[in-house]
Amino acid sequence: MDSKSCSNDMEGEAREMDTRSLSASGRGSQYLHKVGTPPKQNLLREFTARVKETFFADDPLRPFKDQPRSRKLVLGIQAIFPIFEWGRSYNWKKFRGDLIAGLTIASLCIPQDIGYAKLANLDPQYGLYSSFVPPLIYAFMGSSRDIAIGPVAVVSLLLGSMLSNEIDPKNKAEYRRLAFTATFFAGITQATLGFLRLGFLIDFLSHAAIIGFMAGAAITIALQQLKGLLGIQNFTKKTDIISVMHSVWGNVHHGWNWQTILIGVSFLSFLLVAKYIGKKNKKFFWVPAIAPLISVILSTFFVYITHAEKKGVQIVKNIEKGINPSSVNQIYFSGEYLLKGLKIGIVAGMIALTEAAAIGRTFASMKDYQLDGNKEMVALGAMNVVGSMTSCYVATGSFSRSAVNFMAGCETAVSNVIMSCVVFLTLEFITPLFKYTPNAILAAIIISAVAGLIDIPAAILVWKIDKFDFVACLGAFLGVVFSSVETGLLIAVSISFAKILLQVTRPRTAILGKVPRTNVYRNILQYPEAVKVPGILIVRVDSAIYFSNSNYVKERILRWLMDEEERVKAACQPEIRFLIVEMSPVTDIDTSGIHALEELHRTLGKKNIELILANPGPVVMDKLEASKFANLIGEDKIFLTVADAVSLCCPKQAEQV
Amino acid sequence: MDSKSCSNDMEGEAREMDTRSLSASGRGSQYLHKVGTPPKQNLLREFTARVKETFFADDPLRPFKDQPRSRKLVLGIQAIFPIFEWGRSYNWKKFRGDLIAGLTIASLCIPQDIGYAKLANLDPQYGLYSSFVPPLIYAFMGSSRDIAIGPVAVVSLLLGSMLSNEIDPKNKAEYRRLAFTATFFAGITQATLGFLRLGFLIDFLSHAAIIGFMAGAAITIALQQLKGLLGIQNFTKKTDIISVMHSVWGNVHHGWNWQTILIGVSFLSFLLVAKYIGKKNKKFFWVPAIAPLISVILSTFFVYITHAEKKGVQIVKNIEKGINPSSVNQIYFSGEYLLKGLKIGIVAGMIALTEAAAIGRTFASMKDYQLDGNKEMVALGAMNVVGSMTSCYVATGSFSRSAVNFMAGCETAVSNVIMSCVVFLTLEFITPLFKYTPNAILAAIIISAVAGLIDIPAAILVWKIDKFDFVACLGAFLGVVFSSVETGLLIAVSISFAKILLQVTRPRTAILGKVPRTNVYRNILQYPEAVKVPGILIVRVDSAIYFSNSNYVKERILRWLMDEEERVKAACQPEIRFLIVEMSPVTDIDTSGIHALEELHRTLGKKNIELILANPGPVVMDKLEASKFANLIGEDKIFLTVADAVSLCCPKQAEQV
Repeated sequence: MDSKSCSNDMEGEAREMDTRSLSASGRGSQYLHKVGTPPKQNLLREFTARVKETFFADDPLRPFKDQPRSRKLVLGIQAIFPIFEWGRSYNWKKFRGDLIAGLTIASLCIPQDIGYAKLANLDPQYGLYSSFVPPLIYAFMGSSRDIAIGPVAVVSLLLGSMLSNEIDPKNKAEYRRLAFTATFFAGITQATLGFLRLGFLIDFLSHAAIIGFMAGAAITIALQQLKGLLGIQNFTKKTDIISVMHSVWGNVHHGWNWQTILIGVSFLSFLLVAKYIGKKNKKFFWVPAIAPLISVILSTFFVYITHAEKKGVQIVKNIEKGINPSSVNQIYFSGEYLLKGLKIGIVAGMIALTEAAAIGRTFASMKDYQLDGNKEMVALGAMNVVGSMTSCYVATGSFSRSAVNFMAGCETAVSNVIMSCVVFLTLEFITPLFKYTPNAILAAIIISAVAGLIDIPAAILVWKIDKFDFVACLGAFLGVVFSSVETGLLIAVSISFAKILLQVTRPRTAILGKVPRTNVYRNILQYPEAVKVPGILIVRVDSAIYFSNSNYVKERILRWLMDEEERVKAACQPEIRFLIVEMSPVTDIDTSGIHALEELHRTLGKKNIELILANPGPVVMDKLEASKFANLIGEDKIFLTVADAVSLCCPKQAEQV
Repeated sequence: MDSKSCSNDMEGEAREMDTRSLSASGRGSQYLHKVGTPPKQNLLREFTARVKETFFADDPLRPFKDQPRSRKLVLGIQAIFPIFEWGRSYNWKKFRGDLIAGLTIASLCIPQDIGYAKLANLDPQYGLYSSFVPPLIYAFMGSSRDIAIGPVAVVSLLLGSMLSNEIDPKNKAEYRRLAFTATFFAGITQATLGFLRLGFLIDFLSHAAIIGFMAGAAITIALQQLKGLLGIQNFTKKTDIISVMHSVWGNVHHGWNWQTILIGVSFLSFLLVAKYIGKKNKKFFWVPAIAPLISVILSTFFVYITHAEKKGVQIVKNIEKGINPSSVNQIYFSGEYLLKGLKIGIVAGMIALTEAAAIGRTFASMKDYQLDGNKEMVALGAMNVVGSMTSCYVATGSFSRSAVNFMAGCETAVSNVIMSCVVFLTLEFITPLFKYTPNAILAAIIISAVAGLIDIPAAILVWKIDKFDFVACLGAFLGVVFSSVETGLLIAVSISFAKILLQVTRPRTAILGKVPRTNVYRNILQYPEAVKVPGILIVRVDSAIYFSNSNYVKERILRWLMDEEERVKAACQPEIRFLIVEMSPVTDIDTSGIHALEELHRTLGKKNIELILANPGPVVMDKLEASKFANLIGEDKIFLTVADAVSLCCPKQAEQV
């Protein structure tokens, strides 16, 4: 009884027998399934499909399909201003959640804003300004429900460092103008990337690099705070750890102020304890959230009654009262600072985007809603453009405040509006009260805030999963800590790119063997029980074959062959007569790849070895035929599976395994 | 009778039944083959293996293995100077082939050299110098047997164009010094790339881009020759087609010289006919090879007896007699020209490498010998460094002369030595005879030489195979023709890089279906007969999942799911309960990729859909376990094949298909 009739006789399961067993009965002469060539596509359609997949992968126009015109208009407005979509189902229950969340993040953001503004070398009110206008704009245009908008530590540090490379921060007016210019172009960059659907560009900063970069930035920021925490007057302007430590120890005898240290360290301990409580029990998330405001109130009161400012404790002194003044005419639209602002804006805008995108995605996946990354970018860009005209500097989503927002039960972007209102009231009425707030408190608040950016377990996980990723992570970290934020960023991006180039230049290849009692051929390194078929070498190429790797792939296959021939000779086994290239992972091939295959075929021909291909994909099959390579090696040398190919080569041997 | 007992009863073929049919009888409870996890590797060993595969992919130290010390020394010398290896088996028969080939390429190279030197804005003797020293050095260090070394058209044009951007060629001494400096650094670049085993970098200029770039350069060069061919005195210095045509037509009334045109056009026709004869019948390859020299002799004699130079026919006038003077102290090792020379040298060196590598590989594959690309680069680099010190400019392998060398039956690099000797004799004794050679002849020779660089069939093939490649080809071509060589080069490299980035950012995905009567699951677009299994969505991801594409992959899978859910709903079919991700082509995954899978798992969990993985490779399996993702979804959710996975999900349905 041959296998064919057997399979017809049998029940359900037996029908599952694969081509190999069916075709083997015909000794490789008739195969049921040829390798398919996809139907020829119209060039324009192919191109359109490719463009769509690249830039509109998320199919943003899907809801517009087959809708009447008026509905399309409504949908269009809703697409630009999502508030008109979710606003219709807004209710009091949601408002309750948003109110609590909004008040919580407001209490957190006010002291943080003042400190972050100092990090960017700006006056404290600019931090508050940036927590007033941008969240309002975002509430109308953004689609994340959990993100908390405002100035953030890393962007503030980056901006402060890049701006002061161009203009001395003591030159306040010009420095501020350049800051607004950079903010304007950061917004333009973000909106443009979103509008041109180039959002995927921010994916080129790998997750691992971000972990290292953030940790480095956190340490740099914390080190900067030693100035406020220790009450040092003459502090270095550099941000690298060596200059800072030098500055700190150089001032140990004259520069440290014990009253400042006392206030700073005690409140830092308080903040860290509050943080620990919040971490231990998620129910007490509000403890670390309001601790900063309580510290500010207590310490301000304390300084006020003890007149500690006369004993060398530095205080905020003056925060301008009133809401954001216009800054439209302060932006440099010409002159040498235009280009500098543009450059700084692009970098700051991209980093701000990276942070916002990471936050948006995390919470969207937690609450299971979809975020259109490109639309988000347009929203963030618009918000920063408007911000740059109303005295704000670059705002984005904050890690720490967004987490608090989420835990406080926010429902929509209305929590940002609530926060914005509180900041408005603060600017209008309360700022004079901050006069006696000691700088040490702000330093303590920033240190406790950025501590959360150091994610050691994540770094350990990166180490465990991918060593190369860890190098990117470490490189970014060391670059930031020992040189500057920009250097760290450059290292992170370079290593990320190097990894991509390495991937496309040196794809993996594997020798396949037959997994016993199956028809499956797998990598013999992964499946030690898999056995090679005598007289046949089966190689799998694990990547598209492109100009960047075609030579390598060809030479690597020949080297596998050479090794195998040596082994076979030494073991007195039958000579290699067939080389089967498993093409399943080869998703595409270009002209250089075809050339490499042709050269491989020619070299093998001289050695009297037959080249056989298994399972080329649709695109590859198309190109093999277009280039006549399929004719060159013979259409009958291309098989659906490795098993089919082996059964043609030497049916006897295949069965013996 | 169930399939298991059946398979035991049957003969050979039936044993081939795969896991699926075996395991299905157990209703998915016991599987024969688990997905293998490769044995844990020592970190250092893993790293070493990776570095080796990246930089020493060709295993250059293989012959050194297990050899005694003295033998290693000999092998080392032979590795640096391959002449000591092939020289030992050199014999008179080989010398006969080399002699004929050497004389043929010498007759071709002498007039070409003079013309190419003019293209680089150098005096004619510098072309001859560059055909004297570099071939000698190459003969000792190079391992290609067929390459013909000397100045080439494209590099001469590139060098001429880049150098004259920095220094006016009329300022001869300084211009020449910068040329030597650029040559020096071109050599250093080449040797360094080879020594650091970074040869793969030149693969980043894709085959298609080179076709376009070469064709563009050929047209630009030919256009430049109109000056000599038409006898125009005032010619533009720009190389783009518009400026050149403007210059040509602007001079039509006063500038054209009919005697020059007569000589030029008649000899150009002669050369083209000779070329045609050589192409039609390979036996007459020597006809086009010696035609240039014959033209030079005839036309020089003709000008000499008719005194045509007095009627406005421009002649070479003077070629300095004697061999290369030293130029060591002419190289700029400091000052502003050092950096400029370095920049030009890097670009020219890379282009020269690209040309030499393409030639070397082509002929090596034709004669079936192995070339170590990195060793070749060291040889080319050393040759250019020595060249820069002996008044040569950048030399490399010439397409046209190497082809003639091959067809004339060269056996080893000795043909280069022969050519070098002929050039030496020319420099010592014959140069004065070139005084009356008309420039028009040189122009005609160059035009007929570069015509071979325009490869229209190759461009058509590129169009047929890969449209994106064709864009690179066309971009490089138009860039060179309408702007400049540098622009064309920049376009070519940019498009090549864009392609790589696109590849890693937007990998393909496919929906799989079961090919009827087999156990094989394939892309339903490629195999229209393949059918989806009800209640299961099978998606294949066609690339490593890295930070650059992890978000896209996750979102694309979810979109496939959404589409399928809609379709299923409309068709009243059973709901999707399982999502199988076929991981065969996923050769690697990084931290971002694991995150994306985690998010996918979470989202699917909310929809009550199970995530199942099929056939993850060794590296991926390793990382899935390191990150505990394998535990998260359950080890029993990872299968050897899609068929196995399907049989677990719904054995009944799988059988019905």
